[in-house]
This record gives sequence, structure tokens and C-alpha cells, in this order.
Amino acid sequence: MRITRRELLSGLAVVSVGAAFPGLSLAESPTSLLRINPDRLRNSLEGLSIYGRPGGGTFADGVSRIAFSDADVAGHKYAMQLMRSFGMEPHIDPAGNIFGSRPGSDHNLKPILFGSHIDSVRSGGNFDGDVGSMSAIEVMHALQEQNVTTRHTLQMVIWTNEECCFTGSRAAAGELTDGDPALAYNGISAADGVRKLGGDPARLAEARLLPGSFRCYLELHIEQGGVLYKANVPIGVVEGIVSIDRYDVEVRGFANHAGTTPMAERHNALLAAAKLIEAVQNVVTQKPGRQVGTVGHLEVFPNVPNVVPGLVKHSIELRDLSAEKIAGLGEEIQKQAQEIARETGTEIVIKLIEHDPAAVADAQIQASIESAAAALGLKTMRLPSGAGHDAQMMAKVGPMGMIFVPSVDGVSHSPKELTRWEDCGNGTNVLLQTILQIDRS
Amino acid sequence: MRITRRELLSGLAVVSVGAAFPGLSLAESPTSLLRINPDRLRNSLEGLSIYGRPGGGTFADGVSRIAFSDADVAGHKYAMQLMRSFGMEPHIDPAGNIFGSRPGSDHNLKPILFGSHIDSVRSGGNFDGDVGSMSAIEVMHALQEQNVTTRHTLQMVIWTNEECCFTGSRAAAGELTDGDPALAYNGISAADGVRKLGGDPARLAEARLLPGSFRCYLELHIEQGGVLYKANVPIGVVEGIVSIDRYDVEVRGFANHAGTTPMAERHNALLAAAKLIEAVQNVVTQKPGRQVGTVGHLEVFPNVPNVVPGLVKHSIELRDLSAEKIAGLGEEIQKQAQEIARETGTEIVIKLIEHDPAAVADAQIQASIESAAAALGLKTMRLPSGAGHDAQMMAKVGPMGMIFVPSVDGVSHSPKELTRWEDCGNGTNVLLQTILQIDRS
Repeated sequence: MRITRRELLSGLAVVSVGAAFPGLSLAESPTSLLRINPDRLRNSLEGLSIYGRPGGGTFADGVSRIAFSDADVAGHKYAMQLMRSFGMEPHIDPAGNIFGSRPGSDHNLKPILFGSHIDSVRSGGNFDGDVGSMSAIEVMHALQEQNVTTRHTLQMVIWTNEECCFTGSRAAAGELTDGDPALAYNGISAADGVRKLGGDPARLAEARLLPGSFRCYLELHIEQGGVLYKANVPIGVVEGIVSIDRYDVEVRGFANHAGTTPMAERHNALLAAAKLIEAVQNVVTQKPGRQVGTVGHLEVFPNVPNVVPGLVKHSIELRDLSAEKIAGLGEEIQKQAQEIARETGTEIVIKLIEHDPAAVADAQIQASIESAAAALGLKTMRLPSGAGHDAQMMAKVGPMGMIFVPSVDGVSHSPKELTRWEDCGNGTNVLLQTILQIDRS
Repeated sequence: MRITRRELLSGLAVVSVGAAFPGLSLAESPTSLLRINPDRLRNSLEGLSIYGRPGGGTFADGVSRIAFSDADVAGHKYAMQLMRSFGMEPHIDPAGNIFGSRPGSDHNLKPILFGSHIDSVRSGGNFDGDVGSMSAIEVMHALQEQNVTTRHTLQMVIWTNEECCFTGSRAAAGELTDGDPALAYNGISAADGVRKLGGDPARLAEARLLPGSFRCYLELHIEQGGVLYKANVPIGVVEGIVSIDRYDVEVRGFANHAGTTPMAERHNALLAAAKLIEAVQNVVTQKPGRQVGTVGHLEVFPNVPNVVPGLVKHSIELRDLSAEKIAGLGEEIQKQAQEIARETGTEIVIKLIEHDPAAVADAQIQASIESAAAALGLKTMRLPSGAGHDAQMMAKVGPMGMIFVPSVDGVSHSPKELTRWEDCGNGTNVLLQTILQIDRS
């Protein structure tokens, strides 16, 4: 079979190096021409999509593979079966994370680690986490098939319960607190969930990866936003995972009869909350940059049509790569809230309940991803990750890098979540080539 | 016992006409000097408050005497016991309404009807409905005690389930539809609830009072708003019960990841709803008058902190004596909503789901209330009722009038609801004297 260089670089051609370069021994094959098998990747993703699919649905109906559910357990079994299909023996750590290893030739080098997760949100899509996990398997499969031996040992991982709490990667980062295993998620404690996935909650401490224990951690993931899709750029080079500040807000007014309380006499908590929601929007959008601010959760009390709301509780969430920037936005919102409280005769109490620091991607890895993509003829764009990822936990332990592929229309956490097969293949080739570049360096 | 005119007019003196005017026969007694017994009225209200009081609570802890609950049944029994204590035999109609009658001397005259309700909202107060009901009993008791025979037959009534649906007065107005008895309220169908109160749902049609069947209907009620209290006026003369337009609003945006969706790419349903809540406030307050507008109920979907809200459902309620005025406000809100939808990239659908016409109080009765209050030395103020009352149902059948007494700080539908005992007594004396004025006319 003759394959042109153009076909090779398109990322669509299935390349068997042995077949394409029959005169070369496998050890001597030019690994820069190695490609993954995009059809096999697609098959893996479609095969995985069955576990957690709504009854009677198709791939397009998305998935509910909630962590620790039976569907999650079945998905884990499926992934391990794929690993075994090319001779890779999976290993489950005490946190239920699945690891797979290909020994390198130089035992003095630390392993290169890469992977993602396969648990989903309720009514999620078939790409969030799945692409990174199946691509990790595909990279291992392609290397095995071509009998390529890298210098570094390669390790792939599928992390436990990313969507709720980063349970698996948090354990690996040594950041699980004593209480975490007791926390219930989806009607099951993390301890029981981890046990269901073959882990051992009593030995969670042993799941820890010590700082400096790997060369780097790489994760391919869908962008989930629409920046790459809109710009028509196939590969995103993640600069870092944003810092997140989460606030709880209580707007305290006075509940009273909607018919008998004159407008001027009201202490309307929902009117005050409405003004605060607008203030959040204005404060966040008035400064240039990629920061975002969201009021996503809101409850009204007593919440009946004929009573002036006496109490509103809502969230505010601010995200940006710069923790200082969102702290400043929080202060400005706090200031405007006090003006709104005075104006509406209410009391507004805003409490910071969570601060997630930013996780910066390693500069050299960003450069390696760009160089790998360039060699594949793929355009790249640097961007922050507005969403949290297991990679932010790994960034606490060693150098981290992330590759993004476009989400059609920026839709995620929805059955409508979609990343084109071509983009899945391109991303996986970039992952493979980034690994090989780092392996050579 | 000597009683000065000042004491008589203060509304605080307990007057026994027989004792005060020993030389007069009861038939000749000057009924304009008749007063109710404010201590007995207070005892009745305090006695009633026990039924539905929170466990271990006091009078100040309010009441949950939800219609058709065991507490409601007990309250009805208590009211009937009070009626029997002075020889009035209660009669329960097929809708569960309690009637009591004192025959007049002129059988050609139609009866004068007056009363209120004793059911409460959950965690309500001890004055809403209770004052009107206990005052009706007290008026009957005072007349019986003084052996006064009026020209018109006097009828008092305690209506069934005012708070939810005006079940009793609606049946009396002939406005119950076939489906109403099947409707569940507080976990019980209206049919079963009416049966629990001694009614007969199969004969609901017989509860109807035909147009022209009574001389007039009078109701004493707490204002529930703070207009009288703020103006320090003891008696409100109700001009009418406002018209109410109720709208259901759906704001349709697009749910997306709060971390990955740039601010400019959002279709944020909650941001749009916030702007609409402000628009309702502005439209309603920009015109002079007593109209009110309220967004009291609001739900966010999916309502989690890290997802841009994709859907918001909320209520809009507009009230004013002029149905035309609130229709105009509704149109202006509709117009502004479409601008907000364009501006926020959402779709806003506003549906009128209910229109309650205004119920105008009879002009002559308003004058009689004013004249009765003036004779008692009590200042009055005309005002609309922003809340609905059984009186609005009776206005469909005959001339209607309402007397308001002040609510401290305008608080109602709350355990903190409070009307001073002095004001309860004043209102009941005005009710008595209004009845006697109309009886003479």
C-alpha cells in the first residue's frame, strides 16, 4: 500500500509503519511518521458509549456514566478489555484508577504518564474524558502494534470519578483528606465506590504519586468551550487550568403579601438578587480578558407567586488563570452588592466558600505540543482551560501539559456534546507525537 | 355602672345596654350606643388560635390551620361551640360553610350577611380571617345579649378554604366548576375536605346563593398591608378588591459549562430573567398609583453553580383596581421582555394564565361604614384591597362592603402578623354599627 506524505499528515490515513516502510526494521522506523489508527479509536469510543447509554438510545443520545454507577464499572471493564487486547495488563490502584505500562529502554528515566477519565455527568456526552482515555489506549496500541520501544517507560491512566471530585487524581496527588472517602456521591460513599471499581479505600494513601515520580503528565481532552471550533483551529495548547473562586450569597429581605405590600414598602430579596446577577455580569465583562463569572444556582424563599420573596440564596463562580484578577472581581462585586442592599432595603452576605488555585501548564511541554502539531501540519492556539481536569491534580506532582480538541458549537456536559472524528484522530496523533518528542528529549 | 360618652366612643368600654340604660326597654334601646365586648372578642381569638398552633408554641408563634386539616376541623367545631354558647344554632351548608342566623322583624327584607374564614396559610398569623369570623360571632352575641331585634334577618358565615381557592364562597357564588371538587389541596381533594367539614360534595350546587338573595355582604378583615398602620388610621373603607393578572414566564437560553463558555457566547437564561425582574419593577413603579407587580416564584434549570442556566421559569403577578391599567402594564412588560431576549440571545415566552376581575365595593355601603366609624369617633381612609377575599365572590351575588383594620408593620401570612386588640375591637364595633345603619335604611 502506497501512502503519500500528504495522506500521512492528514491524520486520517491508517499507517502501518512496517507496511509503509518495508525496508526498515521496526526499531529503526522513523517514529515521527508514526500515526494512530483513527478507525480503531472511533470504534473504542463507540464501544465505550454503550455503557451508560439511555435505554433505546443511540450514540447521539449521550451517556450517563456517573462515577461508581454500574455503567461506570462496566466502562472500566471495557477499557481494561481493550488494554488486554494488545497485551497490556491493567493494574488497578487503591483509588480504583486503572494504570497500564509499556517499559522503556532506559530505566534511569522517569515514566511519561498520560490519560483521562471515563465517568460522565448525568446526561453528558461521549467525548468529555472518553477521548483522552481511549486516545491513551490507542497510543499504547499503536506503539505496541509497531513494536516501538521508547526510552521512557510509558504509563497510561484512567482516573476515578473526575466529574464530582477528582477522587482518583486527588488521591494520586496525595490531596485526599480523611473525610473524602466518606463523602456520598450518586448515592454511594467514595469508599464504597472505590471498592466497586476494584480499589481498596483502606490503602488510599498508597495511591499517592510522589513529586518527581514521573517525567510529565499529558492529557488530551475536548475543549468543552467553543473557542477552537469558532476559530477553526484543530489543536489547543492549554496554558493552564483556571483558578476558581466560589461564593455563596444570601440576600435577606422580608417576605410579605404581594397584593397588600406597596412597592415602596418592599424588601424584595429577588429584586436585589436580580440586580446582583446583572452586577456580576457587568463587573466580569467590563475588563478585557478571558475571565468568566456565573450565577448558576439560585433558590427563592418562600417561592410562591403571591409573596414578595424574603430570601434568595445563590452562587457566584469566578474563573481566570490569574487568581489575583478574580479576587479583584470578587471585591468589586462585594462593593456593588452593598450598594444594591442599601438601594433595595435588603442585606446581602457574600461568603467565599472555595478557592481553587490555577494549575499552570509546563512551558516546555506547551512547546513540545506545538512542535508535534506543526510537524503534523496542524494549526494550534494557546488558551486557558476554563474547566477543571485531573491534570490540575497532576500539576501538583510534576510537569503537566494538556491538548485540547474542538467541541462543536462549544457544547459540553450535554448529549449534544460533539467532537468530530477527524479532530479526535488529530488530537490523538498530537498526543502520540508529543510523547515521542518528549521521549527523545 | 356609669359610662361617659367618651368611654363609649373609645371602643374599649364593655357596654351592657340594659345596664347602661336601665330605664329603657330593650326594644327601645338606642342601638347607636350598642358596643361589642372587646374582652370576649379577644378571648374568642385566643381560644381559636390553639387549633393549628405549633407544638409548644404560644399565640405569638402563629398558626397553621390549613383548610381541611384536622386543625381546621377543630377550629370549625370551636366556632360552632361559641355560636351555641349564646343560643345560635349553626348550620353547615353542602360546601362546609358554617351559617348562623338571627331572624329579623320584617320578613320582607333580605338578610344582611357578614363573615370571613378561619383557615390559614402554613405558618400564618392569628388575625387573617379569624378577626372577621370571630367579630361576626361577637356581633351576634352582643345583639343577643342585648336582646336587640333588627328589621333584617342577620346571617353570619364562616367560609370554607379561603386561602387556597375560596372554595366555600366560590360555591356560594355558583362559580365552582365541575373539576374543582377533585382538586387536591394540602394532600386532600376538595370533595373529601368539604366532607370532613360536614359538607356534602354531591350537593355542592345547593350551596349557591342566588343573585339578590341578600341585602348585602359585609366582611371585616385585617388590611395585611401597612397603609393604615403607617397613616395611623384605625378603619379602612375598602373601595374594592383589585383585579389580578397572573403570567407564567419561560426564559429559554442554552445551558453550557460555566468554565468553558466565554461570556460573549452565552445564552444565559438567568441573566435574562434578572433583567426582566428589574423591568417588571420599573414598569410597575413608573406610573403613579397603587398598582403592584411581583415576581414571587422562580426556578432555574439545571440550577448548579458551574452551569450557565439554560432555562428559567417564573411568575409575574400584577394587581390594581383597574383591570385596564394592569393589562397595559402587562403589554409594556411583554415589549421590554422581547428587547431583553434580543439583547441576551434568549427566547422569552410570557403567557397570561389567570385574570381575576376587580370586585368593586358598593358605594352606599362604603358611605355607611364611614358614617358608622365617624359616629364612633374613628378616623377612616379609603383604600383598595390588594389581597383577594371571600367578599370578591359575594360581590358577584349582591352589594359588598369591607372594613379593614391595621396590620402592624403591614406584616401578614406570617406568625408575626399582628393587629392590636384595640383595633380588633374598633373594627368589630364598626361592623356592628354598619349592620345597624343598613338595617335602619
